[in-house]
Amino acid sequence: MASHLRLLLIISFVFSTSSSPSPRFPRRNFQNRAGSQLFRGDRNSYQYETKYFTQQLDHFSFADLPKFSQRYLINSDHWTGASELGPIFLYCGNEGDIEWFATNSGFIWEIAPKFGALLVFPEHRYYGESMPYGSREEAYKNATTLSYLTTEQALADFAVFVTDLKRNFSAEACPVVLFGGSYGGMLAAWMRLKYPHIAIGALASSAPILEFEDIVPPQTFYDIVSNDFKRESSSCFNTIKNSWDAIIAEGKKENGLQQLAKTFHFCRTLNSTDDLSDWLDSAYSYLAMVDYPYPADFMMPLPGHPIKEVCRKIDEANSDASILERIYAGVSVYYNYTGKVGCFELDDDPHGLDGWNWQACTEMVMPMSSSQENSMFPTYDFNYSSYKEDCWNTFGVNPRPRWVTTELGGHDIETTLKSFGSNIIFSNGLLDPWSGGSVLKNLSSTIVALVTKEGGHHLDLRPSTPEDPKWLLDQREAEIGLIQGWIKTYRLEKEAQVSLLKRSW
Amino acid sequence: MASHLRLLLIISFVFSTSSSPSPRFPRRNFQNRAGSQLFRGDRNSYQYETKYFTQQLDHFSFADLPKFSQRYLINSDHWTGASELGPIFLYCGNEGDIEWFATNSGFIWEIAPKFGALLVFPEHRYYGESMPYGSREEAYKNATTLSYLTTEQALADFAVFVTDLKRNFSAEACPVVLFGGSYGGMLAAWMRLKYPHIAIGALASSAPILEFEDIVPPQTFYDIVSNDFKRESSSCFNTIKNSWDAIIAEGKKENGLQQLAKTFHFCRTLNSTDDLSDWLDSAYSYLAMVDYPYPADFMMPLPGHPIKEVCRKIDEANSDASILERIYAGVSVYYNYTGKVGCFELDDDPHGLDGWNWQACTEMVMPMSSSQENSMFPTYDFNYSSYKEDCWNTFGVNPRPRWVTTELGGHDIETTLKSFGSNIIFSNGLLDPWSGGSVLKNLSSTIVALVTKEGGHHLDLRPSTPEDPKWLLDQREAEIGLIQGWIKTYRLEKEAQVSLLKRSW
Repeated sequence: MASHLRLLLIISFVFSTSSSPSPRFPRRNFQNRAGSQLFRGDRNSYQYETKYFTQQLDHFSFADLPKFSQRYLINSDHWTGASELGPIFLYCGNEGDIEWFATNSGFIWEIAPKFGALLVFPEHRYYGESMPYGSREEAYKNATTLSYLTTEQALADFAVFVTDLKRNFSAEACPVVLFGGSYGGMLAAWMRLKYPHIAIGALASSAPILEFEDIVPPQTFYDIVSNDFKRESSSCFNTIKNSWDAIIAEGKKENGLQQLAKTFHFCRTLNSTDDLSDWLDSAYSYLAMVDYPYPADFMMPLPGHPIKEVCRKIDEANSDASILERIYAGVSVYYNYTGKVGCFELDDDPHGLDGWNWQACTEMVMPMSSSQENSMFPTYDFNYSSYKEDCWNTFGVNPRPRWVTTELGGHDIETTLKSFGSNIIFSNGLLDPWSGGSVLKNLSSTIVALVTKEGGHHLDLRPSTPEDPKWLLDQREAEIGLIQGWIKTYRLEKEAQVSLLKRSW
Repeated sequence: MASHLRLLLIISFVFSTSSSPSPRFPRRNFQNRAGSQLFRGDRNSYQYETKYFTQQLDHFSFADLPKFSQRYLINSDHWTGASELGPIFLYCGNEGDIEWFATNSGFIWEIAPKFGALLVFPEHRYYGESMPYGSREEAYKNATTLSYLTTEQALADFAVFVTDLKRNFSAEACPVVLFGGSYGGMLAAWMRLKYPHIAIGALASSAPILEFEDIVPPQTFYDIVSNDFKRESSSCFNTIKNSWDAIIAEGKKENGLQQLAKTFHFCRTLNSTDDLSDWLDSAYSYLAMVDYPYPADFMMPLPGHPIKEVCRKIDEANSDASILERIYAGVSVYYNYTGKVGCFELDDDPHGLDGWNWQACTEMVMPMSSSQENSMFPTYDFNYSSYKEDCWNTFGVNPRPRWVTTELGGHDIETTLKSFGSNIIFSNGLLDPWSGGSVLKNLSSTIVALVTKEGGHHLDLRPSTPEDPKWLLDQREAEIGLIQGWIKTYRLEKEAQVSLLKRSW
């Protein structure tokens, strides 16, 4: 596989295909089937009803297209109701099965009683059960059927959905607060900006809304991943940095690919050393995202501080271990922490039609490079021509790399939002490689950044645990306080209107 | 024609079909061919280049659709250029030929030198020369080809257009200020709200963004028209109010329709008394919009204070004149002020495909009723079922009457915009019947209303005249001052960034 393909498809924030219970890593579409059953959030911890809402396929034209059924989860156990202006918490479903996001967003469930909030989790179109054209197979058939899988359509789905929900509950005056993590956080922030009449504020956790065009340097993501390893151990960083050449050298030997497959315990042999490199790249990148301070199983079952653990394995291998044996020992922490995997499978269909890959090939063009100096990954310069060509070959579609910043902004966000908009929290943990493309400083008195030095990818949205460090408790307290402030201000405004009305009678 | 059809298609703000030089009144599609050559703005007063820009037909999907060519007018005579952060004034083209709007928006041309501004007038898709599918005939062929004629697509056109223009001029940092009158004013306000990263502010003149659903009472428009007549003369008001029954009575007589056609100087006989009633309704409504304090030919060549003149004719007719002869004398001020029209034509094709009517039958559903108490028009209650049915019969499309408020807001705009958004001027004249659906009070310190008691439909955007009253000069001065403030604040912000950058070197 040509090297310009290496970073063709960016890492999906999570997995993209919910029809399969396995997580997928769309950049190379690897999947670890053995771990699949461990990936689900705890369905039993959270009670909700599953419902469906009929949506327009194209909100922005009047073309005669079939409608589709959007799934949503709802829980009203703690809602104080319309008469009390009880708030509605809406999680902006992102690129996967909504049940997975709902059950991995414990924070929202835990604060619902305090706020007396109604919880709704609408699913993103083209994911989970929310399939246009009746089935995943039909929805993903070709570029024509996929063409309505866009961010703007998804935002409009949420807007139409919650407007209708409020009307049905006579809750038009109830404040809506948006939540979202990762791409869902981007949706939450964008929705607050585009639909201020629908939602009073947004908690956008780990939302890299600036990861487009030239807004942040393209090497940002891999530099942060690399730094997460370097800060644990510079020898670990160097071992990884040197491993790529060792892999290529091994691959060139007679039976080298078989030997590599054996060293890394793949069930079958490799087609090229790229297969292995990409498998490792995925592991390191996801490890950086989920470098949480306690054991968790968001992407994979992992120990707390998993990068520390990976580096310990790499650094503390037998002194006669080869560089590749060290790498295998380290990466096994990620792919096989439970120790139950006998051998590893590579995905059979690296170019399968996949929702996030479609989005990356249309709107979500996030240029990513790997620098010579700061990165532990092979050097790579993002090449848009190759990217575009690969998208054409895969989906028969041309990206619109400038569309997101035209439609949703990003360039010089400081000037734009200094005196425009309000009530957005951008929360980020600096260990998360996506934090580099997010908003890390306050843009105004009400569009604020909450940054934790030791946090990972939307850690704040996860359920609380006894091991939560103080900085995480503080971050969540700050979020709760800000959201309380939004709701209080909104209610005072509403009450003032009512008393004005009464006076005018 | 059934009475529920009476108010089916709301009055277009101006005319909708620019391929014909004649103005059209889409509600009944009447047109006064004799007056057509008088309607154009003075092409020779304003110099511009005409250019074309290639646009996506559907910005919000990746369906494989043909691109189209959007016309725009540009004048850079006074632009101070990118290095000076010279502002870009963008007029949001509305439902007609862009040359007509450009040449009727003298205010923008007159202030350009003071601001050192680049002027651009992009045309609205499906109007003028900006036709998808290569021609008006193809674009207006059916509901499928028309389906991309939506407000959101038009706003996205402007956003993509000006982003590209700025890039080509290396003017990315130049502030864009939006202008628009009527539907163009709605576009300007909505664009500032939806694309704050693209434009720093908007002058939205006579923009009835609240004329949807139940936000303002449906009788607002006709009540204001009626009040404009009543304030000139209550006998005039009463004559008009009584005339509708007189028309029906006359129509029921043997040869009544012929007699009516003779009384009102139609070239041919009438099909029903509705034809006449609608012709009169259009005249009164437009008279209220263009009740300017000096002679003008925006819709029709008219004297200053034309309603005063109409009422003078109605009130001062010979004492033996019948009520219908009085009405004819009055309405002749509107339809035949030049005295050159021998007889009046009714449109042959009252249900012809027409851009604004399409928009009224899809997104721009503005409920309009006529009340028993305050209106001089026949009583009418808006009936959505009939409206919908007529849209289906005319275009084969179902309206989405709640979509505009979902996508663009409107309900409880005070609460929404009190602490969200900035830099919008809603200017209105209270004689204009559209003012009732606009924003008439300040929503925040920077989203403000400029209201003139004696103003008409976007009078402030018209070229200055020696007869401009002081309140109009004051209004324009206030607008200039506010826009100067936006630009100044923006430049200070930009300069602060540059000096910060310099310090960090």
